Amino acid sequence: MKSKSSTLRFLYAASEQCADTLYLSGVFVPDPYLSIITKKKCYAVVSRLEYSRVKARSNYDEVMLLEAMQKEAALTLGLEQKRVGPGELMQFFAQRFAVKKIEVPENFPALYYEQLYGAGYNLNIVQQPFFSKRKKKSDQEAAWIRKANAASAVGLRTAEQVLRDATIEGKRLRYGGKILTSERLRTIVDQACLARGAAAHNTIVAGGRQACDPHEVGYGPLKANELIIVDVFPRQQKSGYHGDMTRTFLKGRPSQSQRDLVAAVKAAQEAALRKITDKVEGAEVHAITNDCFESRGYKTERRGNKFVGFIHSTGHGLGLEVHEAPRVSPTAGRLKAGHVVTVEPGLYYPEIGGCRIEDVVRVRKDGYEMLSKMHYRWAIR
Amino acid sequence: MKSKSSTLRFLYAASEQCADTLYLSGVFVPDPYLSIITKKKCYAVVSRLEYSRVKARSNYDEVMLLEAMQKEAALTLGLEQKRVGPGELMQFFAQRFAVKKIEVPENFPALYYEQLYGAGYNLNIVQQPFFSKRKKKSDQEAAWIRKANAASAVGLRTAEQVLRDATIEGKRLRYGGKILTSERLRTIVDQACLARGAAAHNTIVAGGRQACDPHEVGYGPLKANELIIVDVFPRQQKSGYHGDMTRTFLKGRPSQSQRDLVAAVKAAQEAALRKITDKVEGAEVHAITNDCFESRGYKTERRGNKFVGFIHSTGHGLGLEVHEAPRVSPTAGRLKAGHVVTVEPGLYYPEIGGCRIEDVVRVRKDGYEMLSKMHYRWAIR
Repeated sequence: MKSKSSTLRFLYAASEQCADTLYLSGVFVPDPYLSIITKKKCYAVVSRLEYSRVKARSNYDEVMLLEAMQKEAALTLGLEQKRVGPGELMQFFAQRFAVKKIEVPENFPALYYEQLYGAGYNLNIVQQPFFSKRKKKSDQEAAWIRKANAASAVGLRTAEQVLRDATIEGKRLRYGGKILTSERLRTIVDQACLARGAAAHNTIVAGGRQACDPHEVGYGPLKANELIIVDVFPRQQKSGYHGDMTRTFLKGRPSQSQRDLVAAVKAAQEAALRKITDKVEGAEVHAITNDCFESRGYKTERRGNKFVGFIHSTGHGLGLEVHEAPRVSPTAGRLKAGHVVTVEPGLYYPEIGGCRIEDVVRVRKDGYEMLSKMHYRWAIR
Repeated sequence: MKSKSSTLRFLYAASEQCADTLYLSGVFVPDPYLSIITKKKCYAVVSRLEYSRVKARSNYDEVMLLEAMQKEAALTLGLEQKRVGPGELMQFFAQRFAVKKIEVPENFPALYYEQLYGAGYNLNIVQQPFFSKRKKKSDQEAAWIRKANAASAVGLRTAEQVLRDATIEGKRLRYGGKILTSERLRTIVDQACLARGAAAHNTIVAGGRQACDPHEVGYGPLKANELIIVDVFPRQQKSGYHGDMTRTFLKGRPSQSQRDLVAAVKAAQEAALRKITDKVEGAEVHAITNDCFESRGYKTERRGNKFVGFIHSTGHGLGLEVHEAPRVSPTAGRLKAGHVVTVEPGLYYPEIGGCRIEDVVRVRKDGYEMLSKMHYRWAIR
């Protein structure tokens, strides 16, 4: 098992939680475990509970049994076996691979960092992304994201249909014999995603003033004549890749200021999309979006505890994480062919409502390809 | 803002991901942010995207605006504002609170640990659990777990009903005009949980040999006359607390060895439950379970790449995480009144099948109270 490479890379995480570990392994493991990467091979050390499954299904070149490795480590390090925790196991492997240099990710647990540092190893923390190629999505990854977005679109169309079928009673909406709440519509949307093999969580169904807090998931009765933001970012259960799409609906009759707001957001999305191509600065895409809003008189400003206007960035990378590199923000660097990002301008004014429209693109040499698909009609009678 | 406490505690995590942060804050935030804990107060530093929502809804004594704090930190530290990342922000607050000692959790990101260490701070990594009182659940927390388990039970009863309604065609099961697969039954179970306000993920619906890998979620057609493990651990969407229940079903006619296996698991669960009370050693509860299996002749052993028998521990803490402290394992310490743990013995033999029965209890001074409720009938004609 000796390796010529003089550096080991360690990950210590559950692949269900940690996108880097899932990217490496291709298999879901619910509890933290050790991955070891050399120049030539990658290894996993898992308990007997996971051993045969990870051996059969993962991308690792070699899968080792935790209990057996703990026994060997105890002998090598001169410890009782029950004293061999993850930090001791890492020291054992560093000895076994005869390395002094170890690389770990930004979010590596401080406890094991301290232990390895204390044992005299030369530690290098790799800035995110740990696997730089994670930013450029392969055709297979793009296909998974497209599929997850197809689930998002099913969720959005389900929401649209519920709003169409709902009746207006005073200011409230009634559906299936009961008042329609954010919670109930969210459940219906999430169930629709599940039926497409994608698990949504924290789906946003927020109307009126609630929609002006972009991370408010929404609660209580939905109202007629108010903009309702529906933001659906489910994880495809098989692959772990996410979709992320937003549409803004209104049941009833929109006011002129609501029409103008939605038109501005749509125009800003189109302006941003026109800019997207290989090597464009993410910051430039964001600036165009911002300019588009300012030219129409939509100001971004603070009002007491609230912020109004265009109060988030234009987009973010999407893949095994809902928010990952690269960003499309005021300080973002170049987008490159293969990057997958959301394009999601939004405007938020409590007196008008909130509107966000979000799609997903893969950057190409000559522009982009859309990985999300759904119409933009929003006013529902 | 000066504090007499000479130690600060930092958390840097998204409360959606990090149970300690959610326990502290009581509000879901999707991206990592800084929490600061002094002896008297706790503070959050969040972006304008989260500011008013966290201010209105969280348990923090004070919520600070990230963008404003970055500006102040830049002045204090003599840096450009764009150079103020999370590590710099932490240094700024350590200066502001005039402390040299900082405590962080085990899973604190290595990047910021290194930065603070390099800046000369005296860092102490607190072993899990970071908030030791997280182990003892209050009545409110127990009520949330009970509710999440009610969602688990709805999922299990839904699975039972689907199996009851299914017909047997050769070895396969047919339901709603189609072959019944693990995937389809999982979707139906998860949809039922959602309707009860709880989001399930990685629900296990695994039959036959698949069920002998305890973390295999299951795939492909379910079969008649095979033990089918259904393990449902959804997260209540409002509170973030989990349920975790398992039942094992069989559609068709069980063999004698299947009957014996299920009876042994039930007996082991009852033996374990009889032991549970304040101050009992978790290791003793596990040993009783193990003894119960051995006395009936069920051996735990390795067969090539597979492990058979009772290959996991008897239980684990349950709360904001599906697996948290304390454990009920061979090396576990004392259970105490208020601890919430699963009791889930299981047996796994490819030639018979897998069986696991799981309930959730809160330890009391004089025994325990059940936080999960569902019958144990398993053979479905």
